[in-house]
Amino acid sequence: MFMHNKELLQPVKVERPNPTYAAMLTEQLGGPQGEMKAAMQYMAQSFRIKDPAIKDLFMDIAAEELSHMEMVATTVNLLNGHDVDAPAVAAGHIESHVLMGLNPALSNASGYLWTAAYVNVTGDLPADLLSNIASEQRAKVVYEYLHRQIEDKYVRQTIDFLLNREEAHNTLFRQAFNRVQGTSSTQDWGVDENARLYFDLSTPGKYFDIKDPQPPVFRTPDPGARQPQ
Amino acid sequence: MFMHNKELLQPVKVERPNPTYAAMLTEQLGGPQGEMKAAMQYMAQSFRIKDPAIKDLFMDIAAEELSHMEMVATTVNLLNGHDVDAPAVAAGHIESHVLMGLNPALSNASGYLWTAAYVNVTGDLPADLLSNIASEQRAKVVYEYLHRQIEDKYVRQTIDFLLNREEAHNTLFRQAFNRVQGTSSTQDWGVDENARLYFDLSTPGKYFDIKDPQPPVFRTPDPGARQPQ
Amino acid sequence: MFMHNKELLQPVKVERPNPTYAAMLTEQLGGPQGEMKAAMQYMAQSFRIKDPAIKDLFMDIAAEELSHMEMVATTVNLLNGHDVDAPAVAAGHIESHVLMGLNPALSNASGYLWTAAYVNVTGDLPADLLSNIASEQRAKVVYEYLHRQIEDKYVRQTIDFLLNREEAHNTLFRQAFNRVQGTSSTQDWGVDENARLYFDLSTPGKYFDIKDPQPPVFRTPDPGARQPQ
Amino acid sequence: MFMHNKELLQPVKVERPNPTYAAMLTEQLGGPQGEMKAAMQYMAQSFRIKDPAIKDLFMDIAAEELSHMEMVATTVNLLNGHDVDAPAVAAGHIESHVLMGLNPALSNASGYLWTAAYVNVTGDLPADLLSNIASEQRAKVVYEYLHRQIEDKYVRQTIDFLLNREEAHNTLFRQAFNRVQGTSSTQDWGVDENARLYFDLSTPGKYFDIKDPQPPVFRTPDPGARQPQ
Amino acid sequence: MFMHNKELLQPVKVERPNPTYAAMLTEQLGGPQGEMKAAMQYMAQSFRIKDPAIKDLFMDIAAEELSHMEMVATTVNLLNGHDVDAPAVAAGHIESHVLMGLNPALSNASGYLWTAAYVNVTGDLPADLLSNIASEQRAKVVYEYLHRQIEDKYVRQTIDFLLNREEAHNTLFRQAFNRVQGTSSTQDWGVDENARLYFDLSTPGKYFDIKDPQPPVFRTPDPGARQPQ
Amino acid sequence: MFMHNKELLQPVKVERPNPTYAAMLTEQLGGPQGEMKAAMQYMAQSFRIKDPAIKDLFMDIAAEELSHMEMVATTVNLLNGHDVDAPAVAAGHIESHVLMGLNPALSNASGYLWTAAYVNVTGDLPADLLSNIASEQRAKVVYEYLHRQIEDKYVRQTIDFLLNREEAHNTLFRQAFNRVQGTSSTQDWGVDENARLYFDLSTPGKYFDIKDPQPPVFRTPDPGARQPQ
Repeated sequence: MFMHNKELLQPVKVERPNPTYAAMLTEQLGGPQGEMKAAMQYMAQSFRIKDPAIKDLFMDIAAEELSHMEMVATTVNLLNGHDVDAPAVAAGHIESHVLMGLNPALSNASGYLWTAAYVNVTGDLPADLLSNIASEQRAKVVYEYLHRQIEDKYVRQTIDFLLNREEAHNTLFRQAFNRVQGTSSTQDWGVDENARLYFDLSTPGKYFDIKDPQPPVFRTPDPGARQPQ
Repeated sequence: MFMHNKELLQPVKVERPNPTYAAMLTEQLGGPQGEMKAAMQYMAQSFRIKDPAIKDLFMDIAAEELSHMEMVATTVNLLNGHDVDAPAVAAGHIESHVLMGLNPALSNASGYLWTAAYVNVTGDLPADLLSNIASEQRAKVVYEYLHRQIEDKYVRQTIDFLLNREEAHNTLFRQAFNRVQGTSSTQDWGVDENARLYFDLSTPGKYFDIKDPQPPVFRTPDPGARQPQ
Repeated sequence: MFMHNKELLQPVKVERPNPTYAAMLTEQLGGPQGEMKAAMQYMAQSFRIKDPAIKDLFMDIAAEELSHMEMVATTVNLLNGHDVDAPAVAAGHIESHVLMGLNPALSNASGYLWTAAYVNVTGDLPADLLSNIASEQRAKVVYEYLHRQIEDKYVRQTIDFLLNREEAHNTLFRQAFNRVQGTSSTQDWGVDENARLYFDLSTPGKYFDIKDPQPPVFRTPDPGARQPQ
Repeated sequence: MFMHNKELLQPVKVERPNPTYAAMLTEQLGGPQGEMKAAMQYMAQSFRIKDPAIKDLFMDIAAEELSHMEMVATTVNLLNGHDVDAPAVAAGHIESHVLMGLNPALSNASGYLWTAAYVNVTGDLPADLLSNIASEQRAKVVYEYLHRQIEDKYVRQTIDFLLNREEAHNTLFRQAFNRVQGTSSTQDWGVDENARLYFDLSTPGKYFDIKDPQPPVFRTPDPGARQPQ
Repeated sequence: MFMHNKELLQPVKVERPNPTYAAMLTEQLGGPQGEMKAAMQYMAQSFRIKDPAIKDLFMDIAAEELSHMEMVATTVNLLNGHDVDAPAVAAGHIESHVLMGLNPALSNASGYLWTAAYVNVTGDLPADLLSNIASEQRAKVVYEYLHRQIEDKYVRQTIDFLLNREEAHNTLFRQAFNRVQGTSSTQDWGVDENARLYFDLSTPGKYFDIKDPQPPVFRTPDPGARQPQ
Repeated sequence: MFMHNKELLQPVKVERPNPTYAAMLTEQLGGPQGEMKAAMQYMAQSFRIKDPAIKDLFMDIAAEELSHMEMVATTVNLLNGHDVDAPAVAAGHIESHVLMGLNPALSNASGYLWTAAYVNVTGDLPADLLSNIASEQRAKVVYEYLHRQIEDKYVRQTIDFLLNREEAHNTLFRQAFNRVQGTSSTQDWGVDENARLYFDLSTPGKYFDIKDPQPPVFRTPDPGARQPQ
């Protein structure tokens, strides 16, 4: 079960309203690399997990991503300002101004509505962990792009916080991945000849080859971390 | 530019029509872990890549995934049989029977139409490579699920081939990832205190912690492979 | 911020696996009248609300709907059984069997993926409350349909619980609505002649007319409840 | 069956072209609270209704909403002006300029294409009527937002007309709701203990409670209206 | 403006309920070649048309397609029977049974919700007419597939009627096309060398070439028809 | 199988970056009349075709459309410039700046993600060819709109090339159509009285009638072309 506390995980504020940046930041509320996606993906993956350490990790992070979602939405709300005024949005979606009375939208920055097509669940622990590691890396990248396009120091602080949290999650998911390496879809790697072929279909150029393929394992993600039992 | 050869990358056949399995296998034609998604993701990522080795790798694999898409579609077409008969589909979508005259559909097994929401492109090479490694792992998993649910030996051979190719791509993408490690979004990892926090938001239980976070690096994916120049 | 407890809001179990009913019950996980929609709608509406009583009500219920989402997903997971077997699904989507390793899907019963198009937010408190009252009524109806189509006594208990909770939410949202009646979009009702016209465009028949239109107000939803301050 | 008359339900004109406002007004053509949605929802709900008074009301209003759709589209078309010129759209979608030769789009103001995910049909008369009352309230709100953002006096007249018509429909749907109160999903309200619980999951704060829950009934929506037979 | 008459354009009935065929026939209610699509496409195209003969033709047919939509929906409703029972649907979507109380759905046969992505509007009369001719041809094909899969003689009569109406519309749209030939996008055909190249990109085989390309014109679609003034 | 050559089908360049036009041109990368749609439609239709001449034509053109897709994407990439800067996009989607690090998007100009709902496949050769002829005509129209809104001479050259190629494809598809006339869905035209009715449902006005309907045939699309064997 979920509980909510009206205090934010980390307080947010803005120097001043900025309806254009409100639209841009919406990307991380309802876009493919955004907080809602992260929360829903980890929650959806957790429903069948047996391993208590990994189930706990997924729900710790899912609850945190819901809390990030709230931080991003609160920031967008502050940036939206006080009056509906669609032409004040220099670029990006205008739904907050014509549809929602300045509420933040569950969409990306251009107004494409959030869809569960963003969520990857396979029920295979190594594959789901790789999905999550990639998701966290992408989320970091999007926060970097957003960071470069805003001067507001409070918004930058919020983005900094969120970006660093994605790194933390990324590190943790790699620890979890290494814990399950050699199981499920990482077993029996490259046993068949076809796993060692290279089809050089784009010409010119061939730069890689395969000889002795190994399943995915990360180098120690955190040398100082204790091993989960 | 693209060219096409009417020979398949690998020939396909089926023991007998099987409209239910045709619907099921459609998952890998137009689903989120399917061949069309893979082809479009790698192609879309390649448009801005400068590094010639990685650009070549992406287009080699994109062209191969288009060729896989053709193999899967040809197999679905054979499985669909000779007469439109929707009730012969025991489970899954029926569009081949009511809409498409037994053609394969660009949808998942339940009829959800392919969407570019499946495609992840960030323009950051490490992030895009992690996306691709995760995609290939998920595609392998889906082929395993499909393999378990069919007796047809020719279909099994085709699935075996495709599954092994996903392993090959996975291995290659990891080689490429390690080539770019330490650049772009893998730089400056964990410099901020927030990257070392653990919010224990799901109770009871806390199994992981962070002390000295490192950016993602894979253990050597293929000890025998030569290094791209 | 959100916290999670691994205990469910109400424990769930099933008499036996039932993959067909698993697909059917998915409707209330990821369908338009389902728990994810309810949670996301109330959370999204809350981001701009000033009135502390109503903001609290929305977040109390949003957190509960997230907890319902977990109950429904856990039930679907149990019903999915132990082996991927798409043809065992007599009707409805088969993604749990071909894509997700028996995990529950964020879709409706027929596999249409959850979309934020289901979520209504206007930023006008009376309008948003009417949306929520209607949502709760519809959710009750869907649970009634699902109740009629299952014999499993534990699943029935879970549905009974959830159905009754929708009634509770409905009652509470009406209390909140009456608290804000006469404000925002319920002001200035019927001041213009056009609000009193009836266009009898479907023939034959005309059964209703308008003389003295009044804005929406509910009869006391709960005579025993104390008034929020 | 439907018939069409080339005269609009109410004539429309504009003071001058305004491509930005054309995009904004598109919200009420193809958005979630727009005219197409209303027409399709009431029509789709009517297909199974037996009660002749209510079926007639739904089709009277569905036909009117189709006529509103035509009025909105005609206005958007006039506002689009005479030359394709995407950069003249200061905010919102640009499909009229790059795709449609200045035709209005079946999308919201930001270009999200109309989807039947906006349409709620349950086949339960009280629930469907509550959906419609909420829809009409939301449509009024959106017209208010749009009214505030345009100076063109003719466009304002059209919006005024449409806004008032939503009030009329809202009043009529409440009359119809009260006619069916106590039937279907409004029966047996609060018989179970669970319908009287309050989960105080968001802290701090608890402002509402439930003691003696009643099903939804509106106060007399129109004291002067005659009762349908 | 639109008006509605409760008499259907053509009466419909069914021999007996058939929930599976109800799902199948839904294809022509809310699928890409269905009646809703046709109605919305012709209506959306008409909003900017100046030529009175063509505008009248589009609205005559749009109103008829709305009337077909009503016929199809009424038939689906009859086929759905009297009790919600999802497993009675042998193939196709089950939303009528779990969500809608046996109402017909605005989706295709597999439950994919209607989307305006099906609608083609370019604002160029020859292009829009070609779209409509193709749409009518496809609709005929889908009715043929559906006809082959049902024994119910009344349903067959309805399908026969609708199929023949698509032929009529097809013929009329071709008459209209030939009336506008040589205008807009059919002007200046093949003036550039690039319009006469053939890229033989799929090997082996080359069967066609281009020497003296002409814009599209249909052979007289109806030798007996009078010419519109 | 598909192969790729890193040389473009036709080289592209731009005079200077133009982020607004980059967004606009995205319409033909991932919009409903764009190159990805064309490639996927012809490929998807080809999977069941027996006639070798027509199968070859479809794959020749599908491979070319993939190559066009690459040309359009490369041009968008050049137009996007060198720095993420969403407000520099005066109109249209901003995903390249907030999500994708200046990569082109698989969406239309307003950010609606590519969907297989754009793709028409019926498995009936005459119907599919009519779809393709209409698609090519619409693609030409969109290129004309885009041509009018850009001064950049290199971009104009690219658009000219692509526009002329659509004419070539259109001509070829008509040759193919006439080759299959009288088969499949073009047989038995107008045998039933209902194919000769005209419902004059939009008043005032009736300009067309039907007396002796004929199936679709094009006047010779290319008098100089040799007949395929």
